[in-house]
Amino acid sequence: MILEAVMLQVKKGMEKDYEEALSQASKIISSMKGYVSHELQRCMEVEGKYLLLVQWETLEDHTVGFRQSNEYQEWKTQLHHFYDPFPTVEHFEQVNLR
Amino acid sequence: MILEAVMLQVKKGMEKDYEEALSQASKIISSMKGYVSHELQRCMEVEGKYLLLVQWETLEDHTVGFRQSNEYQEWKTQLHHFYDPFPTVEHFEQVNLR
Repeated sequence: MILEAVMLQVKKGMEKDYEEALSQASKIISSMKGYVSHELQRCMEVEGKYLLLVQWETLEDHTVGFRQSNEYQEWKTQLHHFYDPFPTVEHFEQVNLR
Repeated sequence: MILEAVMLQVKKGMEKDYEEALSQASKIISSMKGYVSHELQRCMEVEGKYLLLVQWETLEDHTVGFRQSNEYQEWKTQLHHFYDPFPTVEHFEQVNLR
C-alpha cells in the first residue's frame, strides 16, 4: 500500500466551493483500479490549507493508472483551478514501528 | 478527532537511526491521554523526508496534555536532534465528503 499525500493551498474565499467540488470528484478517484481510500483534512491553523491523503495499492496505480486516464482529465477540470500555488504530490510507504 | 500532521526532514544518513528512535519513542506517545493512533510514512521521492500522522481525541490532548507533560521532554530528547530544519506541526479536521 502506498500513501499519496499532498498539502494543498486553496485560493482565498473558495474553501467551501473546493470542499463541495472534492466531494463531487470523489466518485472519480474512487472508481479507479488500485484505489483504496481517500480523505480530505482541513488545517486548523492556516486558512485554505488542506491535506489530501489517498491510499493506493501500488505506486503505479496512481502515477500511471490514474494520471494517464481520461478520469484524471475530469479530476483536473473539477479541482485544479482551486489551487494556488499548484501543489507537489508525494508518495509515502508506511514505516513498520515495532 | 484531530489529526496532527507534520512533514519531517531527517539529517542525511540518520534515517535508519531515526526510524529506530521513533519506534522506541512510540510507547511514550501511545501512553498519553487522548492518544488514538500514530503512523510514520517514509517519502519515496525525497530522501530523509517523512510524514508523521497522529490522531488525538481533541486538540488540547496534544497541545496541552502532551506538550506540557514530562513525557514530552523525553520525546524531545529522543527525537528532536534528528530534524533539520525543525518541523512545523499542524492540526487538521477531517472534511465530511458526501
